[in-house]
Amino acid sequence: MYQLGIVKRNFVRADRAAVDKLAGFGTATIHEAMGRVGLMQPHMRPIYAGAHLAGTAVTVLLHPGDNWMMHVAAEQLREGDVVVAACTAENTDGFFGDLLATSFRARGAKGLVIDGGCRDVKDLAAMQFPVWSRAISAKGTIKATLGSVNVRIICAGAEVNPGDVIVADDDGVVVVPAAMAMQVADAAAAREALEADKRAKLASGVLGLDMYAMRGPLEKAGLKYID
Amino acid sequence: MYQLGIVKRNFVRADRAAVDKLAGFGTATIHEAMGRVGLMQPHMRPIYAGAHLAGTAVTVLLHPGDNWMMHVAAEQLREGDVVVAACTAENTDGFFGDLLATSFRARGAKGLVIDGGCRDVKDLAAMQFPVWSRAISAKGTIKATLGSVNVRIICAGAEVNPGDVIVADDDGVVVVPAAMAMQVADAAAAREALEADKRAKLASGVLGLDMYAMRGPLEKAGLKYID
Amino acid sequence: MYQLGIVKRNFVRADRAAVDKLAGFGTATIHEAMGRVGLMQPHMRPIYAGAHLAGTAVTVLLHPGDNWMMHVAAEQLREGDVVVAACTAENTDGFFGDLLATSFRARGAKGLVIDGGCRDVKDLAAMQFPVWSRAISAKGTIKATLGSVNVRIICAGAEVNPGDVIVADDDGVVVVPAAMAMQVADAAAAREALEADKRAKLASGVLGLDMYAMRGPLEKAGLKYID
Amino acid sequence: MYQLGIVKRNFVRADRAAVDKLAGFGTATIHEAMGRVGLMQPHMRPIYAGAHLAGTAVTVLLHPGDNWMMHVAAEQLREGDVVVAACTAENTDGFFGDLLATSFRARGAKGLVIDGGCRDVKDLAAMQFPVWSRAISAKGTIKATLGSVNVRIICAGAEVNPGDVIVADDDGVVVVPAAMAMQVADAAAAREALEADKRAKLASGVLGLDMYAMRGPLEKAGLKYID
Amino acid sequence: MYQLGIVKRNFVRADRAAVDKLAGFGTATIHEAMGRVGLMQPHMRPIYAGAHLAGTAVTVLLHPGDNWMMHVAAEQLREGDVVVAACTAENTDGFFGDLLATSFRARGAKGLVIDGGCRDVKDLAAMQFPVWSRAISAKGTIKATLGSVNVRIICAGAEVNPGDVIVADDDGVVVVPAAMAMQVADAAAAREALEADKRAKLASGVLGLDMYAMRGPLEKAGLKYID
Amino acid sequence: MYQLGIVKRNFVRADRAAVDKLAGFGTATIHEAMGRVGLMQPHMRPIYAGAHLAGTAVTVLLHPGDNWMMHVAAEQLREGDVVVAACTAENTDGFFGDLLATSFRARGAKGLVIDGGCRDVKDLAAMQFPVWSRAISAKGTIKATLGSVNVRIICAGAEVNPGDVIVADDDGVVVVPAAMAMQVADAAAAREALEADKRAKLASGVLGLDMYAMRGPLEKAGLKYID
Repeated sequence: MYQLGIVKRNFVRADRAAVDKLAGFGTATIHEAMGRVGLMQPHMRPIYAGAHLAGTAVTVLLHPGDNWMMHVAAEQLREGDVVVAACTAENTDGFFGDLLATSFRARGAKGLVIDGGCRDVKDLAAMQFPVWSRAISAKGTIKATLGSVNVRIICAGAEVNPGDVIVADDDGVVVVPAAMAMQVADAAAAREALEADKRAKLASGVLGLDMYAMRGPLEKAGLKYID
Repeated sequence: MYQLGIVKRNFVRADRAAVDKLAGFGTATIHEAMGRVGLMQPHMRPIYAGAHLAGTAVTVLLHPGDNWMMHVAAEQLREGDVVVAACTAENTDGFFGDLLATSFRARGAKGLVIDGGCRDVKDLAAMQFPVWSRAISAKGTIKATLGSVNVRIICAGAEVNPGDVIVADDDGVVVVPAAMAMQVADAAAAREALEADKRAKLASGVLGLDMYAMRGPLEKAGLKYID
Repeated sequence: MYQLGIVKRNFVRADRAAVDKLAGFGTATIHEAMGRVGLMQPHMRPIYAGAHLAGTAVTVLLHPGDNWMMHVAAEQLREGDVVVAACTAENTDGFFGDLLATSFRARGAKGLVIDGGCRDVKDLAAMQFPVWSRAISAKGTIKATLGSVNVRIICAGAEVNPGDVIVADDDGVVVVPAAMAMQVADAAAAREALEADKRAKLASGVLGLDMYAMRGPLEKAGLKYID
Repeated sequence: MYQLGIVKRNFVRADRAAVDKLAGFGTATIHEAMGRVGLMQPHMRPIYAGAHLAGTAVTVLLHPGDNWMMHVAAEQLREGDVVVAACTAENTDGFFGDLLATSFRARGAKGLVIDGGCRDVKDLAAMQFPVWSRAISAKGTIKATLGSVNVRIICAGAEVNPGDVIVADDDGVVVVPAAMAMQVADAAAAREALEADKRAKLASGVLGLDMYAMRGPLEKAGLKYID
Repeated sequence: MYQLGIVKRNFVRADRAAVDKLAGFGTATIHEAMGRVGLMQPHMRPIYAGAHLAGTAVTVLLHPGDNWMMHVAAEQLREGDVVVAACTAENTDGFFGDLLATSFRARGAKGLVIDGGCRDVKDLAAMQFPVWSRAISAKGTIKATLGSVNVRIICAGAEVNPGDVIVADDDGVVVVPAAMAMQVADAAAAREALEADKRAKLASGVLGLDMYAMRGPLEKAGLKYID
Repeated sequence: MYQLGIVKRNFVRADRAAVDKLAGFGTATIHEAMGRVGLMQPHMRPIYAGAHLAGTAVTVLLHPGDNWMMHVAAEQLREGDVVVAACTAENTDGFFGDLLATSFRARGAKGLVIDGGCRDVKDLAAMQFPVWSRAISAKGTIKATLGSVNVRIICAGAEVNPGDVIVADDDGVVVVPAAMAMQVADAAAAREALEADKRAKLASGVLGLDMYAMRGPLEKAGLKYID
């Protein structure tokens, strides 16, 4: 449940070692390692190709067309954080630009995930400040209404609690609960270890049908080959 | 109000000096300098990264699937113009490609803004002919129905009159009325002058909360800090 | 009409010479050469800029969130094929990633067209394995339900029969029926031959109004020039 | 061009007799009578079936999530007016409900057209207060930011000036400029007079092909009948 | 593959008895009886609640904003036909209204399915002329470009051949190939016969878990009950 | 965080008296009484006009195109429950129809809220079984993959925990956490008590500008009246 008008100052951030380990995996691998959960919706896209991000969430709840809480969030940042911003209604306004990016970076932030609009994207790319957003829009915002900082939010369909690990890349954004971070990192590593072997086999022409022993189940399901 | 079947030959283009001055600012800055108005909707995207454009509008009103009026518009172009095309219904067909771009450039056009589809985008990128469009689509169009050229149009939610200044970049497209062009350019310059100082402060770790004196208003609005 | 649970092993692929000839033209030219038909809807976008593809279709019918049939399709691939995958309902899940790309390439595939989601796009770009998709999404899929391989499908609004020629570039995806492939290639060549001359004229400042003799038809349609 | 922070008190409303005459025609007929212009986009839908509206526009420019200006507009209403509200960004929040409807009706308003959300739709239907909106949403709005009243706005793709005639029905919303109101009403009447005869002929089995003499043009365009 | 500029006069319509039998089933039942294929996409909605339709398809291929071919189609209608219209690009213009409905009905048509816009919906409801469409829009169309009549079309994602059976209700639109019509009708009848018994059991409180013997498969799949 | 493959049998349902009290208020009032939070996104619409619902949530997490968990949920229902179903990806398939409604009703359910598709809507309306859904679609689903029952879900952008109060009407769907149910009901009652007086004043012609004392704040914000 959203709460408005609140800034939570203390919360447990995911273990740094776990964040660093998770940073080595793609979002697809992490999402699989968690049991196929934790992804944001695919409308969340990086503002430049090749952007990559891993850090601990400082959450922000915004109102449409109002970025006041982004300034409040800046004070709560620590080295290695990622700002994750949701909005109470679907909105594409440009809540974030190069000035806020300068401030966030100075306070330790590694990037932004926002279910809203972003602007100054050329400058942000030049700064290599990674942002995943719903839209790119030059439209400015006001500073008039209280949202919240560091409450649980729902961002692009995913629940985010302050301190959770956020990993984002060209494939999207995944959220790993702080308490599960190392366990998920381990599972991701195990999964990736298996993939190298699979990749080699597939590259040599072995079929997934055989490698995954699918022929029996397919036949049982009734698949028919015709000429 | 749209008018169909009309080509207006004479109209006042915005002052060249004002256009040149506006060309130096981003769309976000210009939109703010105008009092947060004049932006097109964010579905208007450049066909290649880094595209930039500033010029005076020659407007075109199209019907879905019909680009006849684009050829009529070509004759009305002067050095420094930008073609701005709206459609009477939402349509993604490819109204524009490399042949029209060749013609438009030969007649002095600097680029195109179209609330419809564009094709030959690889060639257009190679030509460095900038286009902002609703979609990219190979679908061809016919030449059968009269629209208009140089009437007031509504393009992607923004009113555009012939002669208005169009500035477009990675953040979107903004329209500056011809009569306000120099005044807006001055306001944009003033705004940008202030930003350098702000950026330096923020980069040094000063918070927007303090720089913009937000703590009092936030407290008055009822913001609560909890642990 | 879709058929479920079927894999067709034998069908006539378009003539290789025709495919090679078609590979030299853009999708816009080919679509025009076919009489303005055969395009997929414009939501089908390449996962990296500059992607290009021409080959013969191996078709796949998927269920939302289930990529089992992609593995079945791998076995049916021959050198020069393109996998074309449709889904029984609009779905953006990541049906395809770098492991399947490795397998498809090992079996001779030149790329993928999928009316669904794709993941591992950074890896796919590094492999230069071209994909056109509805979305990019890290979301994994299951292997539980039978679709079909090499039945007639409707992909992004276009009918695709196994063996048809698929050409895809930055402008979109076009489907050429196998039996028409050389005829369309010839028509595309004829069309392109005419364009060089047109381009030169337009570049010299000749107007389309004159080059296409449009002034009479426009006047007859009632176009009025005003000052 | 939008202007913010302004309330225009005096403007010329369309002639009452013209409004009354236009009220007798459907939006499709009026739009055709104006030369196929003046329609809002089709996402504008009535909140209950059978709603009908004709009146003179009082315009409102809103910010996303903020309905402050609706209260300002109430004071500017006269008998026979219709409130037409646009928003500076796409937004579905519930800007309007039964309390504002009660106020608007008490001040003479006949209904509302809003490119945003509406709530209390059951109550509004019971009151028979007609509304055309982009969405239905229970979400409340704040009162914090200045927009404008009675400036020219762009609402759902259509330009609306204060005093223009608004006609809305199950097919959508059409805007008739105040100065053209009687002329359009006359053209609509003429058009409708012709339709009765056409309808009778078509009902008797006469084909449009013959009634509109289309066979020649179709043949000339190359239509081929095959068996 | 679409063909433009063609009217096919002779084709085999589905057996009347099969159409009549299919008319007794809902679209969901028919789609299941066909093996879960044949449905149009869910954006196709009836223009009034309770609309129902069953008949044989006369197909029309339209261009955006152009309804010329609808008049050509009228001549090809026979008693019991349904007009099914697709468009070469996504378009919401009002291709169809009460005059065409009058003509179509006089020629024997039972209704319309159109992947485009419809207008005069109040009149059409009064006439009880059922229409399923992508949109409702007052926007008029022109008559300038050749499409086709009675070629195979793809309408809202479904393949439709002339003579196929079309059944439409509040749940959507389903297409039954002419040659399969009676077989599908029989399968639908068999399916519905089973449902009465199931409904009675479920109404008495029996669980689907038991009725469909799902407990074993769920346990095998790993479902865990926790407290 | 989603969990897959789990059915939680025991949880605390909101107090019955609080549910009954909340049933007396509209979703707009309840959402305001909670501090403007708790609403689902506005794409959630009732399948018939006038539908109303209040009950305690039994939650379901589905996969696209798979309704297996709906049967698992049926067993967990108690008198007065509402099934609330989310999907791991945006999907419009018809997960629910009259058979499941019969079963749910027999087990005590008052209705359904599903961020997916619904079918058999005519039958459901006849049964007066209220459903709010993302779409209406005849498309059937399979039973192959484990989701969960009674875990915390995110449904149409709102967090729902099992036992929460769900109220739904023509304006949308609101979620009240179980622990806050009576407090919110009291706040809603207080709010509604104030509205009767406001409504009477507005009906008599008093302006919101005066009733809410807005003139001062508007002047302070800089609003200008011009003639």
